[in-house]
Amino acid sequence: MPNLITLTTDFGLADGFVGVMRGVILNLAPHAQIVDISHGVAPQQVDQGAILLANSVPYFPEKSIHVCVVDPGVGSARKPIAIRVGETFFVAPDNGVASLAAADLATRIGATPRAYELNNPRYWLPRVSNTFHGRDIFSPTAAHLANGAALDELGTPLDSFVNLAPPQPERRADGSLAGHVIYVDRYGNLVTDITSNQVASFDPDTLVVEIGGRALR
Amino acid sequence: MPNLITLTTDFGLADGFVGVMRGVILNLAPHAQIVDISHGVAPQQVDQGAILLANSVPYFPEKSIHVCVVDPGVGSARKPIAIRVGETFFVAPDNGVASLAAADLATRIGATPRAYELNNPRYWLPRVSNTFHGRDIFSPTAAHLANGAALDELGTPLDSFVNLAPPQPERRADGSLAGHVIYVDRYGNLVTDITSNQVASFDPDTLVVEIGGRALR
Amino acid sequence: MPNLITLTTDFGLADGFVGVMRGVILNLAPHAQIVDISHGVAPQQVDQGAILLANSVPYFPEKSIHVCVVDPGVGSARKPIAIRVGETFFVAPDNGVASLAAADLATRIGATPRAYELNNPRYWLPRVSNTFHGRDIFSPTAAHLANGAALDELGTPLDSFVNLAPPQPERRADGSLAGHVIYVDRYGNLVTDITSNQVASFDPDTLVVEIGGRALR
Repeated sequence: MPNLITLTTDFGLADGFVGVMRGVILNLAPHAQIVDISHGVAPQQVDQGAILLANSVPYFPEKSIHVCVVDPGVGSARKPIAIRVGETFFVAPDNGVASLAAADLATRIGATPRAYELNNPRYWLPRVSNTFHGRDIFSPTAAHLANGAALDELGTPLDSFVNLAPPQPERRADGSLAGHVIYVDRYGNLVTDITSNQVASFDPDTLVVEIGGRALR
Repeated sequence: MPNLITLTTDFGLADGFVGVMRGVILNLAPHAQIVDISHGVAPQQVDQGAILLANSVPYFPEKSIHVCVVDPGVGSARKPIAIRVGETFFVAPDNGVASLAAADLATRIGATPRAYELNNPRYWLPRVSNTFHGRDIFSPTAAHLANGAALDELGTPLDSFVNLAPPQPERRADGSLAGHVIYVDRYGNLVTDITSNQVASFDPDTLVVEIGGRALR
Repeated sequence: MPNLITLTTDFGLADGFVGVMRGVILNLAPHAQIVDISHGVAPQQVDQGAILLANSVPYFPEKSIHVCVVDPGVGSARKPIAIRVGETFFVAPDNGVASLAAADLATRIGATPRAYELNNPRYWLPRVSNTFHGRDIFSPTAAHLANGAALDELGTPLDSFVNLAPPQPERRADGSLAGHVIYVDRYGNLVTDITSNQVASFDPDTLVVEIGGRALR
């Protein structure tokens, strides 16, 4: 059973939210190894969290439990879910934040994602707030998975769950590719949805990149 | 003996102060498990650190060592102390920063906090600076506690230590409750000192919340 | 063999770069203990990273692997290297970022630094990018060292490597010492290259500190 639990959130590191999640996990699963992917997702930007998680998961061991909490709908009817893909678990709100990573992993290893609604309060903290399911539901769920709990103890299977459409560049009539800037990193690099394979399909001698109305050769 | 050491400071993560504390601890106690609660306490805001620690400690295992360094008086006469409450240790300057968490825990488990002045330099780094007791005194103390050292080896019992008064809303003559905003979190939420029990004591149909001169129903 | 791996970078914590490095390391060396020194080095400021690492390494166990990635030349001809000093390893680009720490440690323990060019792709990730050797080369190298790989498997010995000159105050003709501010910390403290020993060589009764055209006694 996996003992590596990764955390990806939009909580930042200042407020102590992440510290509390670590406490909840270690209280229930003292042998869990907690690894932060990032807590710097922009507040409530589900797409950004989904892309960041999908870009990170391939570098982690397959036997990992990935907790991803970017959760603008916390306290509403959106479901808390867990998705199993092979030996990997994703624990997240059902808003698509884990869906790109799960779909990508499923394609890579040839597995089918199996989603469960987390609806068994025995595996939550005794008091569940309306504002912090990262602490009250998602962290204890991850800890119980690390302790070997089965998904059908934690909840019930779902026929479907929210899948985000991964960002895609558009192919234009003139053969050009119109991509989108999906992220600006710490160095000011603009990260787009155009893949290196797509760039390689153009002749480098004649390739023109247009951005902000300026053309670069 | 506890091997979980939590860190709460106002050091931020950029300057390497926290990295050095981790090194000091692991050098002395290689098997310690170090967990960050937060290093984003606003510089020298003892009250904020005290509240953040008190809000976090309940989620951690009882056998934990909580190091909390928000220490505007470093290098002055303020004492370095350790407080034991049941099986939990707090290691901090004697400015009240650990006092809310210690008092809350003592109430919850029905124990009496026992404080010690840390005055045995054998358990410190060989050279103690005037500016960084987090590295020179508090981190080695936590490591020695994780290694099983007894508090009366590390120092001498204190009759009293600085206790902060927890923030409290005021009950007004008209029956209303005047709370204080004690924190603004990453999402812009205003965190007050009014508890959910206190809110529940009002009739939701007639409850009026006034803030910044505006009334919300 | 060492299992403690420290990370010092200019990657920040928001973008997920550091999370990915942690994943790469734990995928190859599940028992490695990863400790962050700092990821807040100002982008591409090799000198700042070098000083921060040199100030931190003395507090860590000697059997550590220090990965330091401040790497403006990534993707160019600058070499990836590892330096061994006694039982300590440094893994970094050959731009001097690890050189102050390595030289300081060599002096303290009376050892000679031995540098290797990392040129055996068997110990890298299968695909090496032009922009993220922290993930593709330095993290897997650290993991393999933690697993007991020998440096001469990972690469070939170098006769020399880039050594930064540590910052030094200038002694002036009038006997005064002109230092440089090398860092402003979170509290606004100005950190200079003047050592406490150098300050102690002046008579405190007559010592004058000049900064920004103002004289302080």
